[in-house]
Amino acid sequence: MRILGIDPGLRRTGFGVIEVEGSRLRYISSGTIVVPTDQPLAGRLKVILDNIREVVQSTRPSVSALEKVFVNANPTSTLLLGQARGAAVCALADSLLEVHEYTALQIKKSVVGNGHAAKEQVQKMVQHLLELDGIPAPDSADALACAICHAHLFPLSERLRQTAGIAPSRRTRVRAGRVLG
Amino acid sequence: MRILGIDPGLRRTGFGVIEVEGSRLRYISSGTIVVPTDQPLAGRLKVILDNIREVVQSTRPSVSALEKVFVNANPTSTLLLGQARGAAVCALADSLLEVHEYTALQIKKSVVGNGHAAKEQVQKMVQHLLELDGIPAPDSADALACAICHAHLFPLSERLRQTAGIAPSRRTRVRAGRVLG
Repeated sequence: MRILGIDPGLRRTGFGVIEVEGSRLRYISSGTIVVPTDQPLAGRLKVILDNIREVVQSTRPSVSALEKVFVNANPTSTLLLGQARGAAVCALADSLLEVHEYTALQIKKSVVGNGHAAKEQVQKMVQHLLELDGIPAPDSADALACAICHAHLFPLSERLRQTAGIAPSRRTRVRAGRVLG
Repeated sequence: MRILGIDPGLRRTGFGVIEVEGSRLRYISSGTIVVPTDQPLAGRLKVILDNIREVVQSTRPSVSALEKVFVNANPTSTLLLGQARGAAVCALADSLLEVHEYTALQIKKSVVGNGHAAKEQVQKMVQHLLELDGIPAPDSADALACAICHAHLFPLSERLRQTAGIAPSRRTRVRAGRVLG
């Protein structure tokens, strides 16, 4: 399974691709799409759309994962983020990739073991888990963390679905890849 | 000039296409994309993306216009609307169409002559201006109104740009197609 994680934003959109081989995770690629701020909205969204499609074409992921958005107190920021996120999801759906969504809490718990971990802890754990030579940049780290979270949580939810013969309940409590109740 | 107006929403996205011949407006097509609510976000955004691209392909507009969004007090709704709007703008930008944005106030002023006109007045004026046999449905009417607004305001802003040799100031005051100051 090859997973593309995306951390969408209207200024910078991070992406990260990993491969799952048994229980081992392998780093494939990551980076940041820097969106020009001097363009009108349509041009900026098209940069996100085109670049994510290009990442999909060049890295050929089998599935994608995205952070469920923190709704900002500032409605204008929320709207801008929503539009950037819409463009990212469109690029994924347009590439016929399944899109899975995880909350920041799920991602941090799954990667660091602590849902309230600091940004630097996430970066360090991503470096450790993927055996990277250096600390990944923040946007790449967030995107890679999202992909790692999917690698950790998805087999579990699949297993639960197969065991129960139904889709997993939304209320299933999972901590660091373990079902709690 | 053939104008595609879009009224984006995550449940229903309206579209309307008109043609401008001198000072006359001609109705070409309109409708509502009904987005299935039982799908995950990616599937819903893809419905918007695919259907708008299809409308563009079948009606061949030369330019597009969108309402600038009313930022909702409810941040979750704002985020959802932002994502739907992002998908719509992506479809337009992906079809290499220029995207113009107008506020609800601009649209109502330009179509009805009153920035605070009721929905029904907009529907009636759209029917009148496009010489339609019946009252258009609300989503179609909003999309058509947006296209009409572009037909009314764009030649003006172009003329201003040519006169001044610069892009029109954002503060140019326009009422019902007339420059005020």
